[in-house]
Amino acid sequence: MMEKNLIGWQKQPNKLNIQGEIEKAIETITGEKVELFASGRTDRGVHSLGQVANFKIESKIPIEKIAIAINSQVKNSIRVIKAEEVPEDFHSRYNCKEKTYRYVVNNSPYGSAVYRNLEYHMPVKLDFEKMKQAISYFEGEHDFSAFKSSGTSSKSSVRIIYKAIIKKSKDRIIIELTGNGFLYNMVRIISGTLVDVGLGKIKPEEIKSIIESKDRTRAGKTLPPHGLYLVKVKYK
Amino acid sequence: MMEKNLIGWQKQPNKLNIQGEIEKAIETITGEKVELFASGRTDRGVHSLGQVANFKIESKIPIEKIAIAINSQVKNSIRVIKAEEVPEDFHSRYNCKEKTYRYVVNNSPYGSAVYRNLEYHMPVKLDFEKMKQAISYFEGEHDFSAFKSSGTSSKSSVRIIYKAIIKKSKDRIIIELTGNGFLYNMVRIISGTLVDVGLGKIKPEEIKSIIESKDRTRAGKTLPPHGLYLVKVKYK
Repeated sequence: MMEKNLIGWQKQPNKLNIQGEIEKAIETITGEKVELFASGRTDRGVHSLGQVANFKIESKIPIEKIAIAINSQVKNSIRVIKAEEVPEDFHSRYNCKEKTYRYVVNNSPYGSAVYRNLEYHMPVKLDFEKMKQAISYFEGEHDFSAFKSSGTSSKSSVRIIYKAIIKKSKDRIIIELTGNGFLYNMVRIISGTLVDVGLGKIKPEEIKSIIESKDRTRAGKTLPPHGLYLVKVKYK
Repeated sequence: MMEKNLIGWQKQPNKLNIQGEIEKAIETITGEKVELFASGRTDRGVHSLGQVANFKIESKIPIEKIAIAINSQVKNSIRVIKAEEVPEDFHSRYNCKEKTYRYVVNNSPYGSAVYRNLEYHMPVKLDFEKMKQAISYFEGEHDFSAFKSSGTSSKSSVRIIYKAIIKKSKDRIIIELTGNGFLYNMVRIISGTLVDVGLGKIKPEEIKSIIESKDRTRAGKTLPPHGLYLVKVKYK
């Protein structure tokens, strides 16, 4: 759920952000100024079910008290689920082996009042079977330049998608991508492209040539952040 | 999801409410002042997935345009899913035969940031098997005086619960009650009593005598509104 004032993961002065809130909490608890490193930034409006972040402290506070202590200091739009000790050279971002993202589309005519900030609403009926055909083209190692927004800092646009699945649950269409990493807005652009397939604007078999083209303008639009979930981050 | 300023179903001057917003929308669309009758009021924070309400208009606007027209006028925290014509003597409240409510408890240690306004968080581990034993006592025709808040306008406190089920899905416990009607806060108090059973404060077999006592002080507390959903309203 969107916290109106929460601007996402990354620290910015005078703006409520996840990184800054947790760093402040750790300082309050331990007296130590820390820097928190996440597996990746999440933008404003994106939901995290399984973000991972690391920090280093000298304090002898028992590890099983860390989560509860941080949660007592931060707003309930931020929850730490678990804390554990890691080797000194562990880095949430660089050691990450696999990430899973989910994108939720509500495909009912009028959308949902209750879940409105937790899914993207597409009132026009989508062809699910075509979307299912299309999604398989994303699996494997590809240069995903056609599916990234400018602002990506990474040098290479090659990523591996291990698993790309799409499910239907009543009026909802759920897209799940697991890969070794994702470019900026990649999941939201792939989802937007799949929606275009569902609308008949793009043929399923065209996905192959869109990937090969490396041309952002041939892919679909970037869907809004509130349908996106960072589900899981995996390490060796 | 909670709309911060939305105060629930019932009309109150100068306060954002569901009844008033929809009545205003209908007036804008048809030029007619109408009164909207719901199957029952929902309090601030309660989620409706299947509320039913009726109104009378002279306007010849096609029935299949009504929902889309209302939705274009109201905030997206209110969505009309469907409109249909009913006999002149239909009344959403008096003709209602059956209602289903759901109460969602998040029983993980720290709760969920994403779903925080859509479920009640109980960090202490609940004994699900005991709750399952307890819930069966609520089925049938009973005087539910022990499970109502003051402010109930109805004369009789006798209601029939046709079906009382409890499910577990990972860290979530979901209570679902279907009955011919519910007293004020009845689902929230039954859910609070079941939580007390899960905590070991009340034995499952005590439910019988709590119902018979008609004593509100023997039942559990009224759980907060944001875990409650009006799921379905049925007519003959």
